[in-house]
Amino acid sequence: MRVFGIDCGTEVTGFGVVDSDEKAREPRLNCCAMGAIRLVKSQPLPIRLEQVFAELTAELERWRPDTVAIEEVFYSVNAKSALKLGQVRGVALLAAARQHIPVAEYAPLKIKSSVVGYGLAKKEQVQFMVARLLALKELPEPADAADALAIAICHIHTAQTLAAQGAAR
Amino acid sequence: MRVFGIDCGTEVTGFGVVDSDEKAREPRLNCCAMGAIRLVKSQPLPIRLEQVFAELTAELERWRPDTVAIEEVFYSVNAKSALKLGQVRGVALLAAARQHIPVAEYAPLKIKSSVVGYGLAKKEQVQFMVARLLALKELPEPADAADALAIAICHIHTAQTLAAQGAAR
Repeated sequence: MRVFGIDCGTEVTGFGVVDSDEKAREPRLNCCAMGAIRLVKSQPLPIRLEQVFAELTAELERWRPDTVAIEEVFYSVNAKSALKLGQVRGVALLAAARQHIPVAEYAPLKIKSSVVGYGLAKKEQVQFMVARLLALKELPEPADAADALAIAICHIHTAQTLAAQGAAR
Repeated sequence: MRVFGIDCGTEVTGFGVVDSDEKAREPRLNCCAMGAIRLVKSQPLPIRLEQVFAELTAELERWRPDTVAIEEVFYSVNAKSALKLGQVRGVALLAAARQHIPVAEYAPLKIKSSVVGYGLAKKEQVQFMVARLLALKELPEPADAADALAIAICHIHTAQTLAAQGAAR
């Protein structure tokens, strides 16, 4: 299974691609790619959104994931930030839809729990555990890319748990 | 000048196309088209966003406007609504950017002032004045399409005012 995680942000949008081999006895996770799309504030908003769409589209075409995993809406931000974030998120979801890739959404607490084992983990803890789970030699940078990898790992863990439950029945 | 107005909404997104003839002694406004993109709530969000993008893209290709005019962010909504609206708005702005059409944004108060002469005008007043300014035989429906036409008219009025000020200097 190949999962493409996206961590949307108004300035930086991280992404990360994780493969899992379900046939192996001990399922292994492998990091295929990670990166961050950095937007220039001085550019007009439509141009910035086009950049996010174009870069995500290119990465999705390159990696052809089975699923796109994305953070669920985080409601505690204020309305102004929520609208700005929503604009980027809408474009990211569109990039997946245009390539007919299903999208799974996970709450921030669930993502951190799945990767660190603790829902209120700090950024550094997420980076550390992502590096460990993917056997990376260095901490994934920037933190936005680490978060995107965490979202992808969360989806794989969830799918594995569901599969195990199915097998137990 | 041809202006394509968009009134974004999480369920219905209105659009309207207005032409103005600057060379005529009395500038005339003409309504080329109006419509509404209605989303089905039961569809997954990425599919709904793709529908908005595809329909707006088709209309922009058909009408080839000089400018897209869109309502500025309305901050008084709550964060949840703002994020939902932002997702649609992001996709609408992307549709314009992909066709290299410049985007102008206007505050709701400015739009209503420009069309009705009163910033806190009601929906029915906007529909009535839009019908009058565009010499429509019937009130524009749905209200979302009327609002989109109002946004387009606001842009034309603003451009005319700026041009007149330039000529006076």
